[in-house]
Amino acid sequence: MRRVAIALVHHPVLDGRGVIVTSAITNLDVHDLARSARTFGVSDYFIVHPITAQRDLVEKIQKHWAEGSSGKRIPARKDALALVRPVASLADARAALGGREAIEMWTTSAVNDARVLAMSEARARCAQGEKPLLIVFGTAWGLAPEVHAAADARLAPIVGRDAWNHLSVRSACAIYLDRLLAP
Amino acid sequence: MRRVAIALVHHPVLDGRGVIVTSAITNLDVHDLARSARTFGVSDYFIVHPITAQRDLVEKIQKHWAEGSSGKRIPARKDALALVRPVASLADARAALGGREAIEMWTTSAVNDARVLAMSEARARCAQGEKPLLIVFGTAWGLAPEVHAAADARLAPIVGRDAWNHLSVRSACAIYLDRLLAP
Repeated sequence: MRRVAIALVHHPVLDGRGVIVTSAITNLDVHDLARSARTFGVSDYFIVHPITAQRDLVEKIQKHWAEGSSGKRIPARKDALALVRPVASLADARAALGGREAIEMWTTSAVNDARVLAMSEARARCAQGEKPLLIVFGTAWGLAPEVHAAADARLAPIVGRDAWNHLSVRSACAIYLDRLLAP
Repeated sequence: MRRVAIALVHHPVLDGRGVIVTSAITNLDVHDLARSARTFGVSDYFIVHPITAQRDLVEKIQKHWAEGSSGKRIPARKDALALVRPVASLADARAALGGREAIEMWTTSAVNDARVLAMSEARARCAQGEKPLLIVFGTAWGLAPEVHAAADARLAPIVGRDAWNHLSVRSACAIYLDRLLAP
């Protein structure tokens, strides 16, 4: 299988009115996406935040579970949090994987779009592609349009029983990784 | 489709040493499982906790999102949290669905077992069965053996790339509901 990484973006994302904002780090986003990433063989979990103090917080959480008392209580958590890479921008995440031209980047959204990549096709490409793949998730009300515009593909949204589409990013990421990468 | 409900159990569950304990309510468990439930057409999300003050906390969270300032900020959250039913025991959850004889109860676990129900067969039964179905999730280190023993079936665990099996219950529930109930 090709190398698959994920990124959780805190800027640029939308707020409820569609304005571009910067969201705050949520502790359980750090944990849950790391645990899903570790489960499904994801190589890196980039946490994208432009504010240094917020990236420092991520590192503090990581350290607490690697070396602190919680790491002793739940050793398995360390393996998951070892995948976390705090970066200042999506460009930094791409650079860590070899740079924009060397990778493929897919975005995700709860909202449908005319040109989305169907899940079955996306799953096949995860198994067959050669370039490292970066799958990008948004916090708050989702990724800003410029992030989608810069992607090679936008994944189809997760559709439930009706039009209600308000999964948490923790749940959405778990479902995407399961659909794309589960053996 | 038959009526499908979920339950999140805080007692009896296991701690890291296998001792039966009572875990605390986690705010994002309330939200995330409710949002996954709403997405996939689940009828009820029972939060099982024997301590009245902890059930009161769940109701306070619910009320804050139904009538409080957060409800105004994110109206969709109300629809999800409307599915939440705090109950003192699994027996109370079963009673709310018609009683033990009237329902089918499945448990979940990250650990494999000799007699688990395969996901494909479980998905078929979700579509075809007639009795209301209660799918039970555990917090902490998972459901106590007595809960599995009282179930009609135990679902196969979610298996990733290797033996590492430490998804959050928020992620695991999302994946189970997607696998069993997604259209």
